[in-house]
Amino acid sequence: MPAHVSRAEAYIATRSFGRPTLVLDVDAVEAQYRALATGLGHARIHYAVKANPQAEIINRLVRLGSHFDAASRAEIELCLDHGADPARISFGNTVKRPSDIAFAHRAGLRLFAADAEEELEKIAKHAPGAEVYIRLIVEASQADWPLSRKFGCSKDKALDLLGVAKALGLNPRGFSFHVGSQTRQAAMWGPTLDHIAQLWSDAQAAGFALDLLNIGGGFPAFYGEAIDEPTVYAAAVMDQIRARFGNVPHVMAEPGRGLVAEAGVIAAEVLLVSRKSDRDLHRWVYLDIGKFSGLAETMDEAIRYQFVTARGDGQTGPCIMAGPSCDSADVLYEKKMVDLPLDLAGGDRILIRNCGAYTTTYATIGFNGFPPLDVVVI
Amino acid sequence: MPAHVSRAEAYIATRSFGRPTLVLDVDAVEAQYRALATGLGHARIHYAVKANPQAEIINRLVRLGSHFDAASRAEIELCLDHGADPARISFGNTVKRPSDIAFAHRAGLRLFAADAEEELEKIAKHAPGAEVYIRLIVEASQADWPLSRKFGCSKDKALDLLGVAKALGLNPRGFSFHVGSQTRQAAMWGPTLDHIAQLWSDAQAAGFALDLLNIGGGFPAFYGEAIDEPTVYAAAVMDQIRARFGNVPHVMAEPGRGLVAEAGVIAAEVLLVSRKSDRDLHRWVYLDIGKFSGLAETMDEAIRYQFVTARGDGQTGPCIMAGPSCDSADVLYEKKMVDLPLDLAGGDRILIRNCGAYTTTYATIGFNGFPPLDVVVI
Repeated sequence: MPAHVSRAEAYIATRSFGRPTLVLDVDAVEAQYRALATGLGHARIHYAVKANPQAEIINRLVRLGSHFDAASRAEIELCLDHGADPARISFGNTVKRPSDIAFAHRAGLRLFAADAEEELEKIAKHAPGAEVYIRLIVEASQADWPLSRKFGCSKDKALDLLGVAKALGLNPRGFSFHVGSQTRQAAMWGPTLDHIAQLWSDAQAAGFALDLLNIGGGFPAFYGEAIDEPTVYAAAVMDQIRARFGNVPHVMAEPGRGLVAEAGVIAAEVLLVSRKSDRDLHRWVYLDIGKFSGLAETMDEAIRYQFVTARGDGQTGPCIMAGPSCDSADVLYEKKMVDLPLDLAGGDRILIRNCGAYTTTYATIGFNGFPPLDVVVI
Repeated sequence: MPAHVSRAEAYIATRSFGRPTLVLDVDAVEAQYRALATGLGHARIHYAVKANPQAEIINRLVRLGSHFDAASRAEIELCLDHGADPARISFGNTVKRPSDIAFAHRAGLRLFAADAEEELEKIAKHAPGAEVYIRLIVEASQADWPLSRKFGCSKDKALDLLGVAKALGLNPRGFSFHVGSQTRQAAMWGPTLDHIAQLWSDAQAAGFALDLLNIGGGFPAFYGEAIDEPTVYAAAVMDQIRARFGNVPHVMAEPGRGLVAEAGVIAAEVLLVSRKSDRDLHRWVYLDIGKFSGLAETMDEAIRYQFVTARGDGQTGPCIMAGPSCDSADVLYEKKMVDLPLDLAGGDRILIRNCGAYTTTYATIGFNGFPPLDVVVI
């Protein structure tokens, strides 16, 4: 077995699966947690549960002392079920159901996100006195998957909201932002941090004694393009924060993808290889997994998974990759094709690397009658 | 209650729901089935199960004598469980798992789709002697949701595949195509039918005695732009087929959306209404349902759902619509905004009309911890 083959791939090599299966190595999650924590120093890791809420991951992270960022009541309950201290769980969704805010408050959560007056009013009513941070829009992202303007408010609004929070009896502690998912190099954080630091000092000047900076996610995984090693990356981000913000008492980071993606490998199968016309130079490769059964992040071909087959020694050629459903949108890569062996055929096993994040939960309940992605934890 | 309010909306008006819920009126499905069947004449309806595999829909359609188009083993089993005659179920996915072909063959299915040599070889091996139709690529679609080149083969390949099927001991009966989902007007079928008719006559000239034309789906539902009444639409499509193909002994149609979409209404809730900046003229409206919990067809804003609120008498203004998940891709309509009442607020109920197709099954198993779309059948 070559040295670069992961424990998950070694496990897959000796087994067969009846359907597409994600094999998750929880020891690899732990190693990545430790690597990121070393680089982040005094900043606290709030794992973005939505990336992968697998019980064994949550359980291991609780034992490692991680904090958590939850998007919903169900994610909060999951963390609590595994013994997480409610004071270590933040409710980071800026769009919350009032009854879920009340639940979180009763459960002992203290920290909530908001980016609008109406949301602050809901929090003040259902979690009186809670700590809040205001999410800011990031205008210029260099991420592979830049986030839209869906979350956050603009500069003019942010200072207003700090005042609104105070007037409502809440404790406005700081700002949050998100540099964009899959920000491959630490240096890419620069322009965003410049922008946030300006607002941070405006707020201090306006009399708000902020002490919490939530730097969100953006920590990358390997999808074919070079990324920094996790400890180096995290330390470089923290260096840039210190240079702009000085010593912020509380920094929180919310890695999701960057913590779990590389811990998972999907074992899948080729169902069909074909050419649409005798004149076509490229082939179509249809897998038993697609956009609706685990690979939703191929949307707009933003995330480029790495495919590995056992047919290693022959020539390769360009392939359009597609899923098994009767849905024309279930095409994975078409604009930028994938090079695969010329002798690839239906029935071949195919591995998809670094699939530990945003695969299981994006799977549909059974589109076209195909079951959701199966998971094996090793 | 105004006359235009459907039975499903009347049902919703008297109830409350704890989470987003699709209310499905199976009598409305039956009425639409009868309307389409009247227009289609001797053509057989193979309901595209993937549009909505709800048990009560399958059950009702079995009782009405419908045929079915299945995309997978699970969909075949579903139809059989409700008493469908296996001879009335076609296995229309061009990408099938060999073991599923064998299962279908044992279960008594006779008709299979293919668009590639390798697929025909799989069918010949696991369903020897089966009837097949060859799926063709449609080059020019006028549909709201044109299908990609994922399915079908080109003209040069199609005649070859008829010969390959024969040589493999299969019975090549004809062609299938898909004019594109949500083809709003019957007249839009013209260019596609011209193209297919040319190939049909080429095949007859080459000595293949084809007797089956599968015209696929494309039958529309109302999403704000005018569509023909179902009987008129179906009859006009059949007229165009007769004019080009003469009297084809067996015509099959595969409505999915056109049969069930208008039978369903989603009851949802507004979670937050906000402005990102004091300068913004538009608002952001966040619902408790989004792209990952039922409204996946808002992808690229192709399908435009109709929103109805109880705040009817005031002024309206443009809104960006978004779902509840912590995912920037969970935005429903942004390029073309939706006009909603200026006094809309968090906690308001919002109805989403004509959601009976491609909602429940596209829902994820629990992205962000939100449960999949709930269903109530009336």
